[in-house]
Amino acid sequence: MERNESLRRDVAAIRERSPLVHNITNFVVMNNTANALLALGASPVMAHAREEAADMARLAGALVVNLGTLSPQWVEGMELAMRTAREAGIPVVYDPVGAGATPYRDEVNAKLLREAPPAIVRGNGSEIMAVAAGFGLGTAVRTKGVDSTAGSDAAVEAAAALSEFLKAVVVVSGPTDYVVHGNEVMENGYGTPMMTRVTGMGCTASALCGAFAAVNGDPAEAALNAMALMGICGERAAAASAGPGSFQTAFLDALYAFEA
Amino acid sequence: MERNESLRRDVAAIRERSPLVHNITNFVVMNNTANALLALGASPVMAHAREEAADMARLAGALVVNLGTLSPQWVEGMELAMRTAREAGIPVVYDPVGAGATPYRDEVNAKLLREAPPAIVRGNGSEIMAVAAGFGLGTAVRTKGVDSTAGSDAAVEAAAALSEFLKAVVVVSGPTDYVVHGNEVMENGYGTPMMTRVTGMGCTASALCGAFAAVNGDPAEAALNAMALMGICGERAAAASAGPGSFQTAFLDALYAFEA
Amino acid sequence: MERNESLRRDVAAIRERSPLVHNITNFVVMNNTANALLALGASPVMAHAREEAADMARLAGALVVNLGTLSPQWVEGMELAMRTAREAGIPVVYDPVGAGATPYRDEVNAKLLREAPPAIVRGNGSEIMAVAAGFGLGTAVRTKGVDSTAGSDAAVEAAAALSEFLKAVVVVSGPTDYVVHGNEVMENGYGTPMMTRVTGMGCTASALCGAFAAVNGDPAEAALNAMALMGICGERAAAASAGPGSFQTAFLDALYAFEA
Repeated sequence: MERNESLRRDVAAIRERSPLVHNITNFVVMNNTANALLALGASPVMAHAREEAADMARLAGALVVNLGTLSPQWVEGMELAMRTAREAGIPVVYDPVGAGATPYRDEVNAKLLREAPPAIVRGNGSEIMAVAAGFGLGTAVRTKGVDSTAGSDAAVEAAAALSEFLKAVVVVSGPTDYVVHGNEVMENGYGTPMMTRVTGMGCTASALCGAFAAVNGDPAEAALNAMALMGICGERAAAASAGPGSFQTAFLDALYAFEA
Repeated sequence: MERNESLRRDVAAIRERSPLVHNITNFVVMNNTANALLALGASPVMAHAREEAADMARLAGALVVNLGTLSPQWVEGMELAMRTAREAGIPVVYDPVGAGATPYRDEVNAKLLREAPPAIVRGNGSEIMAVAAGFGLGTAVRTKGVDSTAGSDAAVEAAAALSEFLKAVVVVSGPTDYVVHGNEVMENGYGTPMMTRVTGMGCTASALCGAFAAVNGDPAEAALNAMALMGICGERAAAASAGPGSFQTAFLDALYAFEA
Repeated sequence: MERNESLRRDVAAIRERSPLVHNITNFVVMNNTANALLALGASPVMAHAREEAADMARLAGALVVNLGTLSPQWVEGMELAMRTAREAGIPVVYDPVGAGATPYRDEVNAKLLREAPPAIVRGNGSEIMAVAAGFGLGTAVRTKGVDSTAGSDAAVEAAAALSEFLKAVVVVSGPTDYVVHGNEVMENGYGTPMMTRVTGMGCTASALCGAFAAVNGDPAEAALNAMALMGICGERAAAASAGPGSFQTAFLDALYAFEA
């Protein structure tokens, strides 16, 4: 009841204010991410060059940084945007895609997160465990590319330690999503296995965390609402589709039509 | 009647000749753009590196340059391609995505447009006003990311001044599209609000302007036909879909099935 | 019968083992490629930076390199990944998109293929002829952007010479697909013309060759199974759709639902 009320209020606020969400994200999901934000009612922009990353971040209601297809030039833009947003009080969502897969990713995660801790970190189980391990928190795990090798529940402890360390909300995605804020652990059970058969659903979740954080000053509540919306729309889309192709179109339609 | 005749003739020519349309465009929309060109019957190619941008432009029936996710390396390729196309008499369509959002974008727009004016510039209201203002024509407006903060009608005056200045056709997209050629202002009223809920429909419009300009020597007529086709297919897709997800698939189907 | 058995066995193996397929591919098709691999049951990852390309390749069951939107920085990552994969005995699929369109592409093809010959090369007719001509095998042809100007049958001879030269399986896509291994030429007749109206179906074919090569030690059989699966799912999708938009969603659904 209360949860639904908060979700409904945030969705209405996003549709009314259409917050600008600045994404520095990966090549695979840029289109999905932009379309999910538009379907919900937010206004996405993608801009990564160091020549403008800070200027664009300053205009935004939220910044979403996603490591998916990183390279040094992009990391420079991420760094500038994250620092600018933090200084300006603009909420930052950080998605450590593929954390634990290569030493380079671990190095970049450590650097970016240390320099300008975000409001929200969202990843799958093994990504969150890898990021935490990078700060000496818990045991490292080797991620298989960008897919999790650990269940989301196995990462709750690492998430709590990471949340404490960064003073950030940490979201672990999986069959059950955990939204961890220090000692507080909230759960989202909405969702469908079909979401793992479409690329970038995690990235979309991070982008929606950005849209919610732009209208809701409590990052934990914003993240929980974003994950609930993902799960609810995922379930509706799965019920209306025959496979991962039709699921994708149904998912965008569900975001657009959503009434809490 | 006459308008329909021109549109029908151009579409038939595109399907028959399948002109190569060289795109240097942004990461968000490359897939959409390529698919829209293919659905219509043109042959898209994307190539941005300075090592080959000029060579590829030389092969093309039209060049489409889109600033969406710009960076200095890409701007170099754009510059080479635009200059090459202009010298070779190949029509260039220029899309100043996000003009007015950051100083860097404004700088790049001024530089590229001054060096090698294109045949057609297409943008939304605030983008066109920002580009014009960059040449001292009219009042600047701050774009919100890549979405317009001004109606298309508010930009007609700036478009006329810009058209005069660049000796180019200027298209302002919006609820009504304006195709401005010096003093001449033509309108397109086809379209649907759903087109604003899908990323890159403006970019697709620019790409289709390229396909039409490749087969029609009159850039104003080419642009007007492209905008009419976008609007007609948008209306058909909206009538056949439930939201922005199913709209996208229906839009490509409509382009493919189009009969004037 | 036997063919079907092999295809069924490989698909079952992909679904069971979910091999990691490392793609260094182009901006246009990254999303399609990832989604096709996921729909089939493989685990895609995209990573191109020289800082991690070798590390990621080492984790993979197969590496897919695609020249689509190349630039020098990306070519560096391709080089590192191809050399690493070859040394580690990981099968590499190479897709010379746009070979023959610009001198730069021809130069990169010659360099990458000479340094670390892949297990499988897949291209359309004019791409394969252009690559072969780069090694002095057969007559050059000028590719029109990324679309073939030659039928697949016209390229079989060049494919055989190239296969001999590189000690690799060479696949020529077209109305009939040819899988050429030295003197052996196998044909796949499944497919539909609609596949040419959607961007990146060739790139998807290359990616699926990677998934099959990850579970089948015979690269010729792997490639033939991949091309057959593409064709069968293409036919099913065409039968269930109205144009290139709905075809794409139906194609992913068909991959997901595939039973040999």
